[in-house]
Amino acid sequence: MSDTKGRVLLAYSGGLDTSCILKWLLEQGYEVMAYIANLGQEEDFDAAREKALKVGATKVFVEDLREEFVKELVFPSVQANAIYENVYLLGTSLARPIIARKQIEIAKRENCTHVAHGCTGKGNDQVRFELAYLALAPSIKIIAPWRLSEFYTRFPGRQDLIKYAVEKGIPVSQTPSKPWSCDDNLYHISYEAGMLEDPNVSPQKDMWRLTVDPEDAPDRPEFIDITFTKGIPTRVQNTADNTDISQPLDLFIYLNSAACRNGIGRIDIVENRFIGIKSRGCYETPAGTILRVSHLDIEGLVLDREVRAYRDEHVSLQYGKVLYNGLYFSPEGQLLKNIISLTQEHVNGVVRLKLYKGNVIVLGRYSTTENLYDMEESSMDVQGGFEPKDSEGFIKIQSIRLKKHGNSFI
Amino acid sequence: MSDTKGRVLLAYSGGLDTSCILKWLLEQGYEVMAYIANLGQEEDFDAAREKALKVGATKVFVEDLREEFVKELVFPSVQANAIYENVYLLGTSLARPIIARKQIEIAKRENCTHVAHGCTGKGNDQVRFELAYLALAPSIKIIAPWRLSEFYTRFPGRQDLIKYAVEKGIPVSQTPSKPWSCDDNLYHISYEAGMLEDPNVSPQKDMWRLTVDPEDAPDRPEFIDITFTKGIPTRVQNTADNTDISQPLDLFIYLNSAACRNGIGRIDIVENRFIGIKSRGCYETPAGTILRVSHLDIEGLVLDREVRAYRDEHVSLQYGKVLYNGLYFSPEGQLLKNIISLTQEHVNGVVRLKLYKGNVIVLGRYSTTENLYDMEESSMDVQGGFEPKDSEGFIKIQSIRLKKHGNSFI
Amino acid sequence: MSDTKGRVLLAYSGGLDTSCILKWLLEQGYEVMAYIANLGQEEDFDAAREKALKVGATKVFVEDLREEFVKELVFPSVQANAIYENVYLLGTSLARPIIARKQIEIAKRENCTHVAHGCTGKGNDQVRFELAYLALAPSIKIIAPWRLSEFYTRFPGRQDLIKYAVEKGIPVSQTPSKPWSCDDNLYHISYEAGMLEDPNVSPQKDMWRLTVDPEDAPDRPEFIDITFTKGIPTRVQNTADNTDISQPLDLFIYLNSAACRNGIGRIDIVENRFIGIKSRGCYETPAGTILRVSHLDIEGLVLDREVRAYRDEHVSLQYGKVLYNGLYFSPEGQLLKNIISLTQEHVNGVVRLKLYKGNVIVLGRYSTTENLYDMEESSMDVQGGFEPKDSEGFIKIQSIRLKKHGNSFI
Amino acid sequence: MSDTKGRVLLAYSGGLDTSCILKWLLEQGYEVMAYIANLGQEEDFDAAREKALKVGATKVFVEDLREEFVKELVFPSVQANAIYENVYLLGTSLARPIIARKQIEIAKRENCTHVAHGCTGKGNDQVRFELAYLALAPSIKIIAPWRLSEFYTRFPGRQDLIKYAVEKGIPVSQTPSKPWSCDDNLYHISYEAGMLEDPNVSPQKDMWRLTVDPEDAPDRPEFIDITFTKGIPTRVQNTADNTDISQPLDLFIYLNSAACRNGIGRIDIVENRFIGIKSRGCYETPAGTILRVSHLDIEGLVLDREVRAYRDEHVSLQYGKVLYNGLYFSPEGQLLKNIISLTQEHVNGVVRLKLYKGNVIVLGRYSTTENLYDMEESSMDVQGGFEPKDSEGFIKIQSIRLKKHGNSFI
Repeated sequence: MSDTKGRVLLAYSGGLDTSCILKWLLEQGYEVMAYIANLGQEEDFDAAREKALKVGATKVFVEDLREEFVKELVFPSVQANAIYENVYLLGTSLARPIIARKQIEIAKRENCTHVAHGCTGKGNDQVRFELAYLALAPSIKIIAPWRLSEFYTRFPGRQDLIKYAVEKGIPVSQTPSKPWSCDDNLYHISYEAGMLEDPNVSPQKDMWRLTVDPEDAPDRPEFIDITFTKGIPTRVQNTADNTDISQPLDLFIYLNSAACRNGIGRIDIVENRFIGIKSRGCYETPAGTILRVSHLDIEGLVLDREVRAYRDEHVSLQYGKVLYNGLYFSPEGQLLKNIISLTQEHVNGVVRLKLYKGNVIVLGRYSTTENLYDMEESSMDVQGGFEPKDSEGFIKIQSIRLKKHGNSFI
Repeated sequence: MSDTKGRVLLAYSGGLDTSCILKWLLEQGYEVMAYIANLGQEEDFDAAREKALKVGATKVFVEDLREEFVKELVFPSVQANAIYENVYLLGTSLARPIIARKQIEIAKRENCTHVAHGCTGKGNDQVRFELAYLALAPSIKIIAPWRLSEFYTRFPGRQDLIKYAVEKGIPVSQTPSKPWSCDDNLYHISYEAGMLEDPNVSPQKDMWRLTVDPEDAPDRPEFIDITFTKGIPTRVQNTADNTDISQPLDLFIYLNSAACRNGIGRIDIVENRFIGIKSRGCYETPAGTILRVSHLDIEGLVLDREVRAYRDEHVSLQYGKVLYNGLYFSPEGQLLKNIISLTQEHVNGVVRLKLYKGNVIVLGRYSTTENLYDMEESSMDVQGGFEPKDSEGFIKIQSIRLKKHGNSFI
Repeated sequence: MSDTKGRVLLAYSGGLDTSCILKWLLEQGYEVMAYIANLGQEEDFDAAREKALKVGATKVFVEDLREEFVKELVFPSVQANAIYENVYLLGTSLARPIIARKQIEIAKRENCTHVAHGCTGKGNDQVRFELAYLALAPSIKIIAPWRLSEFYTRFPGRQDLIKYAVEKGIPVSQTPSKPWSCDDNLYHISYEAGMLEDPNVSPQKDMWRLTVDPEDAPDRPEFIDITFTKGIPTRVQNTADNTDISQPLDLFIYLNSAACRNGIGRIDIVENRFIGIKSRGCYETPAGTILRVSHLDIEGLVLDREVRAYRDEHVSLQYGKVLYNGLYFSPEGQLLKNIISLTQEHVNGVVRLKLYKGNVIVLGRYSTTENLYDMEESSMDVQGGFEPKDSEGFIKIQSIRLKKHGNSFI
Repeated sequence: MSDTKGRVLLAYSGGLDTSCILKWLLEQGYEVMAYIANLGQEEDFDAAREKALKVGATKVFVEDLREEFVKELVFPSVQANAIYENVYLLGTSLARPIIARKQIEIAKRENCTHVAHGCTGKGNDQVRFELAYLALAPSIKIIAPWRLSEFYTRFPGRQDLIKYAVEKGIPVSQTPSKPWSCDDNLYHISYEAGMLEDPNVSPQKDMWRLTVDPEDAPDRPEFIDITFTKGIPTRVQNTADNTDISQPLDLFIYLNSAACRNGIGRIDIVENRFIGIKSRGCYETPAGTILRVSHLDIEGLVLDREVRAYRDEHVSLQYGKVLYNGLYFSPEGQLLKNIISLTQEHVNGVVRLKLYKGNVIVLGRYSTTENLYDMEESSMDVQGGFEPKDSEGFIKIQSIRLKKHGNSFI
């Protein structure tokens, strides 16, 4: 390493951009190792490994992070009902901490001086990766080629990258590029840029890669039951196909497939990036959508009203923002994650669902361990549980304050 | 009035309960006037008027409050994205202030000493009505028969009411009663009690009265455009049926019918009543569901990020809770309503929607007056707008704090 | 017990009210046990015990709860910077859960069917006691004589109680009663009612019982150092009097005396009771005031900015409200208490204070274990730690969003 | 202007730094105009004007912004009880928007291409000035010499500035510089840097410039009355010196002098800068401290409980943060300012205060227009206003939820 500018661990995807970056870093005088995180995206990891070696990486690390992704990031997010700007389920945001952590772990082990990534200078992902890198390894050096003028002025367009790749003997996929870009993982896929930049242009039918169009989904619904234990999905059952899964990753993959075939999980939004720019994105979050609906539902049955209200007002939005802005590895990120689990002690029960052409319909729910719901007390027909007179006192006391303001409303 | 215990203005529905209450109040020595609020519920108002007079009301007031309901309660709730416990669109809660206000207005005008209602002693509605009554008329006296032991011990079950009605010559509907109770208005219908009290029992297919089952909805989608002005829907267009409506009530009714025929707006939940009891409810909110989706969407395009975040964190949930708990006519209720309108100044634009078997799908959105979305700045392909170097500074400054905590995460 | 209406455990103070209540309960046919909680209030506990026995209690329990009060209620409140309506340090609220818990514990052990207290029907304390009773023993029966018309109509004024006491042979203190009432414990004393009910009448100089008037405090300041460990005061040093205390109760008592002799901890406010009524109270919270100032100060040095902001926005006010409203023994109360301790992991350090005529003046602070404060980085004179260029990027990125709104401000 | 790099409007203080910057900018080829904002800081404005002209400014603008500072920034901050990290009253933050706005106004009028300031690259003020500049004039160019390496490497220390000043004929003050830096305005003074960078070093007694040491303050208290109208101080009375002032600026100046002579308003803290660095600052905020205490007090008397709670939870901290971070001229800043005024409609009344050696002691308060405080209702002695029985119902209803959790607490 003494004769190089340093050893770089590059987050590598196997695609055109990061292949060119790999080559370019070598040309700048760095030793480069490639790191490929498997988060369940559609990718030929062996081919990517070969390609990285062929371009000149001294080592290639392909890491299957799917299970830790599901358990450490996806499930707590379900527990929190985390959401960004009311609709976005944070698919990209959830993946970044897992990718960055392993990258730093390898970089430390392999004595890398630098880490590098292929994110642009206008997006959220540069922020998410780099805040994670620096939180985990404060003295690591970062190379972000798309923010270096010597790089981005050399490669102003995709054609320039292709030309460079051809010159350098980097294999270039023959598939014509789509008029948008996408990023996928086990949890979701995102589409943005290109023709999507006009927020009034509807996405093409063939853009969506994970879910079928609700219009093309089966005419007959499917029925599944999801069991939650402390707010985490721990069992999925579907009697129609004899499904009964408890292993976290398998369970998640099953929910993905059930959602996908029933057209569940698409959104199309304009969101506000951390950087302050509005951007338009289309997302598919199949299993995540089912889990959100069912987790919200079981909480209705088993969670105390005020704990729920606290979580809604002080945790869900805050955790969503922390994830979106790349602050998972921060004191507040870890605090919030701990708070989430404090709220979920009693979130135990089963939700019965119908999946049908884009709809996740709750059919019922029950819990064998929790008893906040009390059928007799709830009943309008039975005078059990409390004196109607008490309600009068309750109302009268509440009204003391209100009566003072009487004249100003009518 | 001197020879009575007082003059009561009874919120009257035309149904069995309030008819018996009317008679019973007369028997207790009150003079009774009946008040029927038309909020768009399915009801024969003329028949109800006749019935009240027949039972013995000295006057009957039938008031069409639909337009003020839509304009004063429904639309601000859409602006606020008000919601209770993540899913409930507050249909019953929104109607109560409108009903109570007119009741108090008439009670004052007619020199009534009392107001009365037919709500039970376990529900939210008694609270909502009475807090509104007392906020608007601090010295009004309230009669809530279902909380009076002399009433509820006399009428422990529905059969006792029927028997009483027959004895007193009150016409009794021949329709067999459903095994649940419901309450409807222009905005929604609720179903609860009876067989729904077991939260694991799915509602019968024929329970739902407003919307078709998504499975029975048309196989071809419908397309509508909704224009928002300061966060309020001001125009609905559907080229397929030449719809182009701007009048608030007509617009709302049209959206209701479009939602209903496409199976949009059903939910089934367990919620936490103000009184501290969990209860299960099924709701249909057809137009409200379309408006929620489309309002959230247009905000993405035109609302400043921090104004949106403020509203989400400090207004939507709070206003939802205020409405749910019957505190619309309170200082905090009015404060929140004023804040809502402060946030909506720039919520101007059009959302294009596809309605299909329970789904409200956003196809695109645009605004001719707002310009926060900047296609060039947003573009990943163009280096316009700012220096990539700036992002590096942004990230580095953010990381200063995080670097301090580096060791605790890995 | 079979020949009585039940066995009551009465929260007994030794004063006129609860002595009369004790007798009255006996006359109603109850067996009565008396329970006296020692929370550090000024009281002759032996005399109170004798008096209760003399009036007719079958057993008397005097419990020293001071240490658990300080450790379980006072210190977490310091950690949380809990406060109600910006100024009230919750002295009465903090004592109630401790008193109620022991009362229920004894009531269960002694097979009491009822618990009773001497609170009025208009205050906060009835709510605090009873919500705690019912949270801890849902089926316990409660007697609140001041809410029973047979009791309060019999004793409309203090003279009626005295007359009754004299008749029944209950010893009556010869001290003339003050024109206000007060309630004290180790943490604070409250004064309210009587002449204080006019919020514009200043309290008499001799009302204040704990602290000297700042004008009468020593002309020379005192100096103390307080060490915090995880946000809890664990050591107090005063070199002038060779103080060096670590035991929680002793430490707290020392801080009380230091504050009292220097005139520290008085407030005079109008507050909003849970019941919706405004009331005027004067309070002395000597040690609590010193601890609040010093805890806030050490947090500045050692607490992460965002953790602090989270705690300020989502915990301090919420926990203050929970305590004030008597909801310590609730799911949300326990959740908040757990969150508080999550935030205090790094609150370790020493604050050096000057106490002088009502003032708590911070002279400096340091931590030997925490390192968020970085003198070089902080320095305006040194260019270390980061590139000034980074600040420019930080600002420019922040301004992207703001520039959109440029025209509306000037 | 055609023969220069542009015309710069420099925020000029008359001191060494900005004088050198002025000269340096001229040397870089800019035309420079100087702008001096009078916010009440201790300064010889005529001398500063002469100095700027002497150094080479083509024009000098001295602007008296004191009244708009008090009315537009200080008073709304009092209304909001705005505070940063529990103790800092935001003195510097409040001044920046006023200074920046006038600077942009002049820059536009005088066709300046650039604005410049003398803030360092590590502090909050660069952010506050520049975010304001860019919000108000999105295309203005900014020169921040202390962030330019060609500037800061040329002037690494104060001696280098002095040497340059002497060479260039810039008058240098003979006063030896203090071992800290300070910044003052009508509202406050801040001290930081230098020897204060060690957070455990107490400030020297002679550092504090505005207030007397509490130990040196008069032995006899002073008494003043402050009248609030919609939350804004509109009258100050002191019968001892025949003070009766209503004019905003005069009133504020009087409160400053009363506070200063009684040793009121000092704090010494470690705070978290926007930039993520912790720094130590000492502040004097004399009138601001009196106004905070008295405004909080009058709110107790006249503000509805829930409006107060809303403001405390959703406005005070948020507005404090917005001001601290330089976001006054932002959509959220303006939203919050509008919300503040919505909350203050009823904040009308008089607070009577005693000022004594650092203490602001409330003696009483009253309102002739507001009536939320009801002496009879509040009274513990009177059974008026409501039935004690109502409290029982209130408590019982509250306990329904709590009873469910009974077993988990004991």
